[in-house]
Amino acid sequence: MNDIIEAIKNNQSFVISSHKSPDGDSIGSCIALGLALKRLNKTVTYVMEYAPEKFRFLNEITNFNDHYTSLQNYDVGLFLDCSNIEHLHNSSLLDNCDMSINIDHHISNTKYGNLNFIDTCASATGEVIFELINKLNVPLEKEMSAALYTAIVTDTGNFKYSNVTSRTHYIVSKLYEVPNSYSDINTIIFDEHSYEKIKLIGKGLSNLYITKDNKVSIILLTLDDLRNISESVDLEGIINYARDIRGVEVAVFIKETNKNTFRVSFRSNTNFDVSRLAAYYGGGGHMKASGCTIEGITSDQIIKDIIDQIEKDLK
Amino acid sequence: MNDIIEAIKNNQSFVISSHKSPDGDSIGSCIALGLALKRLNKTVTYVMEYAPEKFRFLNEITNFNDHYTSLQNYDVGLFLDCSNIEHLHNSSLLDNCDMSINIDHHISNTKYGNLNFIDTCASATGEVIFELINKLNVPLEKEMSAALYTAIVTDTGNFKYSNVTSRTHYIVSKLYEVPNSYSDINTIIFDEHSYEKIKLIGKGLSNLYITKDNKVSIILLTLDDLRNISESVDLEGIINYARDIRGVEVAVFIKETNKNTFRVSFRSNTNFDVSRLAAYYGGGGHMKASGCTIEGITSDQIIKDIIDQIEKDLK
Repeated sequence: MNDIIEAIKNNQSFVISSHKSPDGDSIGSCIALGLALKRLNKTVTYVMEYAPEKFRFLNEITNFNDHYTSLQNYDVGLFLDCSNIEHLHNSSLLDNCDMSINIDHHISNTKYGNLNFIDTCASATGEVIFELINKLNVPLEKEMSAALYTAIVTDTGNFKYSNVTSRTHYIVSKLYEVPNSYSDINTIIFDEHSYEKIKLIGKGLSNLYITKDNKVSIILLTLDDLRNISESVDLEGIINYARDIRGVEVAVFIKETNKNTFRVSFRSNTNFDVSRLAAYYGGGGHMKASGCTIEGITSDQIIKDIIDQIEKDLK
Repeated sequence: MNDIIEAIKNNQSFVISSHKSPDGDSIGSCIALGLALKRLNKTVTYVMEYAPEKFRFLNEITNFNDHYTSLQNYDVGLFLDCSNIEHLHNSSLLDNCDMSINIDHHISNTKYGNLNFIDTCASATGEVIFELINKLNVPLEKEMSAALYTAIVTDTGNFKYSNVTSRTHYIVSKLYEVPNSYSDINTIIFDEHSYEKIKLIGKGLSNLYITKDNKVSIILLTLDDLRNISESVDLEGIINYARDIRGVEVAVFIKETNKNTFRVSFRSNTNFDVSRLAAYYGGGGHMKASGCTIEGITSDQIIKDIIDQIEKDLK
């Protein structure tokens, strides 16, 4: 990390960017580092995609630029939480930087920067940025601390995932030394939902199907259920209700996207490999989480078909 | 705390107990301290109410005794996480102890012990027990650590509530130094639900009512909805779905307990004082959380009546 510290100290103009569809870790990491650089009297430009509304409590978001045309030249480009060039919000930015620095925690990172710091033991890029700010001797301030808290709670599922380490909680204990409404921030990030979403969860759970042995649970939302529901309602997380039922080994979420066309997600609670299941239907993914699209079938047929496929493998 | 350390060191037989309807903090605190005393070769008896199933991953629970008859005499009674004698699982235990020690974090604690250690800044009694074990020089072991993690995550709503401090996360960072499946424990405590409960949430959300200005949200479960649902299904938490809707100021959960008799819970997201609302109906509680029973009214009438009352005050 020392080469990065030197590069920051020895340069003046910085552009900070991250991946497409920024999440709490990318937004929080960019803001915390940007604010720290400003404290060192550096010039900071953020080139970031429009951030989801729930992160707007971070005031620094108002300084985000989504522009592709008016890019200047910068001494250093800092690319955070982005594992490869293709996934960068604006990869042409690399041509506008005399030096590129790639800071991340993803094991898949392709080390595309002139300098690279990839800590795969960090639960979030925010953990790495905390260290960096520390080594730059910039004292944590309220919004930096809120931004790093946002980064870490997002990527750890509120300290729930197995990527959490002793270091994660140690860092958060340091963030808490800077007074802030962490509890309110947590609520904004995790608990606030739109009325439409809550109603849709209700519909999904009313359509919850479970096999007699409790091993397979399926939530289905049909075109009928989704009528008059805004496209922007985020259906992420609905599958967790199916997954979290005691005894369930495989959870399925089916969303009818067009007449007799369904987008299907699978989750596994056990060693059952749902990537094979998705592959059978022409989709892909990982052992524990996968997905596919299934066409030319009715909603009744799709449930039966999927259960048949899963039960073949479960036996 | 030094007097408590001395009392532990200078005595041999201990009984550990807590409040009625034990939660994660009381169970986790009792187990962690019990195991630490056993490492010091003390004799430990737990007198505890039957623990909820989700905490049974703590093996030490199998040593819990619910007995009222075969109490012996003990050198020291350790009463954890219990603010007053009336709330103790078995208050007659006090008569069987040469000395009673009361360790808690509730501000309402009545200091009923011969020795009392009440730390109202601690998010959980588990935080205090962590310090105590430290000062007794007992190294943390796997189940102690799991028990203290259980205590802290339960009483902080998974690190969400405003009682969380820098110290809370510091202690958890120390717990994580003892390898364990904290992520799995977290899932067991917070995410696993029965199929019945998930279906019931679905029914509740299908019956979700919200006022036009989005300020009041109401979830109603009628006798019809609850037919064939086991009494043991825990309805706690359903009101959160109503509370967590963006813009909602007052959330209400209504459960029909008998024909035209309703148990009602209120939650406030703002300065709206729901204890006054509950008092109007003959109930009680706090500013942010309260409840009452309303009789002799139909389910349609009760919604209208409650909204009228709330809107009178909101204006």
